Amino acid sequence: MVIVMKLDATAEDIGKVEEKLNEYGYQGHLIRGVERIVIGAVGDKNRELVMASLETLAKVEKVVPIVSPYKLVSQEVKKEKTRIDLGDGVVIGGEEIVVMAGPCAVENEQRLCETAEKVAAAGASILRGGAFKPRTSPYSFRGLEEEGLKLMARARARTGLKIVTEVVNPQDVSLVAEYADVLQVGARNMQNFSLLRELGKQERPVLLKRGLSATIEEWLMAAEYIFSEGNYNVILCERGIRTFEHYTRNTLDISAIPLANMHSHLPVIADPSHSSGERRIVPALSRAAIAAGADGLLVEVHPQPEQALCDGPQSLTPGEFNLLMKDLREIARVCGRSMVPAAI
Amino acid sequence: MVIVMKLDATAEDIGKVEEKLNEYGYQGHLIRGVERIVIGAVGDKNRELVMASLETLAKVEKVVPIVSPYKLVSQEVKKEKTRIDLGDGVVIGGEEIVVMAGPCAVENEQRLCETAEKVAAAGASILRGGAFKPRTSPYSFRGLEEEGLKLMARARARTGLKIVTEVVNPQDVSLVAEYADVLQVGARNMQNFSLLRELGKQERPVLLKRGLSATIEEWLMAAEYIFSEGNYNVILCERGIRTFEHYTRNTLDISAIPLANMHSHLPVIADPSHSSGERRIVPALSRAAIAAGADGLLVEVHPQPEQALCDGPQSLTPGEFNLLMKDLREIARVCGRSMVPAAI
Amino acid sequence: MVIVMKLDATAEDIGKVEEKLNEYGYQGHLIRGVERIVIGAVGDKNRELVMASLETLAKVEKVVPIVSPYKLVSQEVKKEKTRIDLGDGVVIGGEEIVVMAGPCAVENEQRLCETAEKVAAAGASILRGGAFKPRTSPYSFRGLEEEGLKLMARARARTGLKIVTEVVNPQDVSLVAEYADVLQVGARNMQNFSLLRELGKQERPVLLKRGLSATIEEWLMAAEYIFSEGNYNVILCERGIRTFEHYTRNTLDISAIPLANMHSHLPVIADPSHSSGERRIVPALSRAAIAAGADGLLVEVHPQPEQALCDGPQSLTPGEFNLLMKDLREIARVCGRSMVPAAI
Amino acid sequence: MVIVMKLDATAEDIGKVEEKLNEYGYQGHLIRGVERIVIGAVGDKNRELVMASLETLAKVEKVVPIVSPYKLVSQEVKKEKTRIDLGDGVVIGGEEIVVMAGPCAVENEQRLCETAEKVAAAGASILRGGAFKPRTSPYSFRGLEEEGLKLMARARARTGLKIVTEVVNPQDVSLVAEYADVLQVGARNMQNFSLLRELGKQERPVLLKRGLSATIEEWLMAAEYIFSEGNYNVILCERGIRTFEHYTRNTLDISAIPLANMHSHLPVIADPSHSSGERRIVPALSRAAIAAGADGLLVEVHPQPEQALCDGPQSLTPGEFNLLMKDLREIARVCGRSMVPAAI
Repeated sequence: MVIVMKLDATAEDIGKVEEKLNEYGYQGHLIRGVERIVIGAVGDKNRELVMASLETLAKVEKVVPIVSPYKLVSQEVKKEKTRIDLGDGVVIGGEEIVVMAGPCAVENEQRLCETAEKVAAAGASILRGGAFKPRTSPYSFRGLEEEGLKLMARARARTGLKIVTEVVNPQDVSLVAEYADVLQVGARNMQNFSLLRELGKQERPVLLKRGLSATIEEWLMAAEYIFSEGNYNVILCERGIRTFEHYTRNTLDISAIPLANMHSHLPVIADPSHSSGERRIVPALSRAAIAAGADGLLVEVHPQPEQALCDGPQSLTPGEFNLLMKDLREIARVCGRSMVPAAI
Repeated sequence: MVIVMKLDATAEDIGKVEEKLNEYGYQGHLIRGVERIVIGAVGDKNRELVMASLETLAKVEKVVPIVSPYKLVSQEVKKEKTRIDLGDGVVIGGEEIVVMAGPCAVENEQRLCETAEKVAAAGASILRGGAFKPRTSPYSFRGLEEEGLKLMARARARTGLKIVTEVVNPQDVSLVAEYADVLQVGARNMQNFSLLRELGKQERPVLLKRGLSATIEEWLMAAEYIFSEGNYNVILCERGIRTFEHYTRNTLDISAIPLANMHSHLPVIADPSHSSGERRIVPALSRAAIAAGADGLLVEVHPQPEQALCDGPQSLTPGEFNLLMKDLREIARVCGRSMVPAAI
Repeated sequence: MVIVMKLDATAEDIGKVEEKLNEYGYQGHLIRGVERIVIGAVGDKNRELVMASLETLAKVEKVVPIVSPYKLVSQEVKKEKTRIDLGDGVVIGGEEIVVMAGPCAVENEQRLCETAEKVAAAGASILRGGAFKPRTSPYSFRGLEEEGLKLMARARARTGLKIVTEVVNPQDVSLVAEYADVLQVGARNMQNFSLLRELGKQERPVLLKRGLSATIEEWLMAAEYIFSEGNYNVILCERGIRTFEHYTRNTLDISAIPLANMHSHLPVIADPSHSSGERRIVPALSRAAIAAGADGLLVEVHPQPEQALCDGPQSLTPGEFNLLMKDLREIARVCGRSMVPAAI
Repeated sequence: MVIVMKLDATAEDIGKVEEKLNEYGYQGHLIRGVERIVIGAVGDKNRELVMASLETLAKVEKVVPIVSPYKLVSQEVKKEKTRIDLGDGVVIGGEEIVVMAGPCAVENEQRLCETAEKVAAAGASILRGGAFKPRTSPYSFRGLEEEGLKLMARARARTGLKIVTEVVNPQDVSLVAEYADVLQVGARNMQNFSLLRELGKQERPVLLKRGLSATIEEWLMAAEYIFSEGNYNVILCERGIRTFEHYTRNTLDISAIPLANMHSHLPVIADPSHSSGERRIVPALSRAAIAAGADGLLVEVHPQPEQALCDGPQSLTPGEFNLLMKDLREIARVCGRSMVPAAI
């Protein structure tokens, strides 16, 4: 870190900074600039605490961090992309683009299985579907809970698709892990650290959605939480950030995809449905995400969007999804990637 | 709600909207505008679902909600401000401004008790202090947990201050409720619905911090969650929202105070410490919050900020806090409110 | 527009709203909802003024607009995309993707011509280069002004490329129009209405960058300003919006591309260089923009980025640009578009 | 500035950075950290250019600026607050809080003079009123232009109030300066550098509104533009920034007031009307701004808000304004400031 002193800092003020640095086992290097003195501090213990402590000293203008706070998820630690192997040839972070599709919420067996069959036929490898639904209003449908998980498992048995579903409570982690192939952390829980730690203690891969107002650095720090407990299977999912624009529900931060690829070794996918909230632009965003280097997509598909108990306006019909998959296959190929062929 | 049809909607398209409205028990009223047709829909069941369903129909341009989604916390339901009585004369939402002060994290008994005595002497009524700390980095100090709660209780016994502390996990609610007078929900957990529901099922008052990117409407909806489970003792706390500005850690949304007072009957307080992250502007923000109509404040105070294990740069010293309290007392009086006199 | 009355509005309050509507030549349609009364107002004169006036009346909760405020640029007025023909086969908004490339600022003849030749060889059709530079600091290089325009014209003569350059002052419009094929409005001037009106009074096409905090609606309204003075040749340019994320200079709002295509008939291009400020992600963003449906790109290219007087860190070298163009040609083809072949 | 090298930077990479620094007349100081090498660079010429140039070199991770880019407006250059004396005892930045009030737009002589007399009687010192109005829609009322300026001058003659009015075009500066005591730069023009330079070349004080998405640093840089041309009379005006919150038109950044006071010597005022767009919270925001240390306010007042040609919903009536002024006088006194007594 670099400590910038105020213009009127005296030798005594600087002495106090150096003393404090020594106290924490750091070494200070004084640089006299044209306008002011800065101190380069060398050390690596308790960085956050040391920075905060220095900031409170007299005549310290600011303390500037030099290294990023994440370690294990950083590309500096591991260059090659992490491959998350779900078995049966489904690998996230490999050469193949992996598409996860399905309804926002699991509603009933018939609809779920119908959707599962159709998205499988179009080339999806993973079925998405919410059994535990975090909802802004206490009066909205909150999901079928364990019954929903069972329906997901039945759809898997029938189609061979893997399944991904959200977990919202640390207490439910082991239950959801019994059923799901991938455990999803929703945007509103990205900094639910109790939940992250619980997910770090088990083995199922975790799909970590970026929070609505999380910086990319905070998103990687959330992944670091899971890593720090021992689970190294994390998939990043960009799902839009909150901005002032109101033609879309959120703003898909397309730059987050190449940036995550640049800073981290984790696979990164995009959710064009939640980021836009608008079915009509989901295909354009899906194509853009793959072109930007995403390793996969999470797309909402519902056989009758106008009957959906949740997020109908952003769901594609199976027919629309099938058309989109054809486009994506072309884009993937151009980008040097492949995709599962459609059965139809 | 109002359904706006596209310019080229046909009689058939409109018929389908009316049919769908009837199906949900709503009545439609057709208005032929100069440029397009809009349909006013009258009904009150499953609003969110009905809106989503209509949005997916052909030739529907958009569906505009008319009423706010919160009910129980709304001023339309209850005009007079909710008073939250903690006993021993400490009432939040009454004529008196209530100040909560103390360290970010509980560190050890001696420091905590020293701080408690000093903030009590300056006129604070409630001691704040974190035992369970949500931290962005897995490598930061996470709090003393139950040991911290015990220290808080000891400080209460010694000073007569009430205590407020954060709970981060639904499983810990009953434990924290054994010790604390007020349970705090942090900004990152404002939409941790499992936690909100658990808090709604018990009786302790809840201090609900606004999320970093939560709209005022979502904040009131989070309070509605707690109400909907039966706990009507909720205190709103504005603690800054995330914006592009980087001279402060967050942007204190001062307008949220009069707006919460206008839309809701809940008491509202401000946290000038977390919103700014900068000790030097905490006094100005504190004065502003009271002048804007806040019912109280949550302020970080630490006897030696440069030794603090957490958030030193934003903590006032007891001396600075005492000076601030003198100013606030004057502002409160001018605003027709009172404050506990200082013992010193 | 729809007028929502407060819960406790009386017949008299409603009468006043209806009176005011009649005064402005509007008709009111009363709808009694379950909870409150709303009034649908039919009319089309002075909408903004009428809305503001109604909002100030007693017991009016809010006034909700129904139609978008832009008219001439809306797809409701004209379905087919506007084609902007610059001559010599360069058409923006046609089947062909058009790439504009060049340095941030014009620096000297030799560098400019070298760049021009290289981007032309790689398949660009238009040379970009700033002669008048708006800079955040008064101490930064502000461009060569008219001398810069002359150098641009010379590069055009040598390469056959069309040229686009920024105009920052209403007084300079006619001067810049003498030299440039397309006049650019920078993000900071998107709501410089004096400049927009001046550009509307002349005939050169205008490339209108979206403001850093402009909604898509405001961006279309800025285009409407130019239209309203008689110039119908406007190209929209998404160049990133300001958000809390700081790994990029701005956040490219990729959704703005399909949304502009959905709401307007104007061609829309993207600027991946300014939106990111980071050369390493420019290729990914460029591919994404074309995949999302952009009609073209505006890319910064500089032969020696480390010598650039402006924006070096976001400039591609000619070699990097050439590689990118190869990728784009593939993506364009997959999206049913074409691109000028490279000469090299 | 501090140059942070990548983990794998070689001696040769570092050599190139040092060479480049020398080329620009800077000295480099190498610090070997635990994880990576950083280079402290000492020098003060062409900082922005040097930083950009270094960022493009191989194996440079990032370049971190150490000093703020503004100089003349900084408190490091001048400690005591700038006092702007408009004559007749009206001084902005002195001990007295100065209130500017009046209609959004000048509409006609009778209404303007009625408003002027009433705000003067309530204790305002300066009349505000727009003659040139920047409007989002080309179809909205754009002001009476020079006729409006004449009416403002007449109201000044009648009441003794000073006048402040907006200028939107560099060409109009000298015209507006003939009539106005203070020239206002609107939020949308904060980075209209042609306008800023023109204002820097004349002598009238300038009221500089913060842009909707401008950082405090950019706002101070815009003031620096005016200073750099020779005009040292600049008043900063916080008027709300754009955020995701939609219960208000913009978010008043109350922290900007103490921060501007901390970083700069310029007087700073607040505009509670434009920042909120909502009359009902204007009094609370006004009180908060004074409590936070503002040197004055800019408030919209209209005798019949429902008849206003612009911004009626956010305008106070003269009666409401008079009540607010009584409150403000009390708050000012508590904050050690004074205010002109009311005549009524």
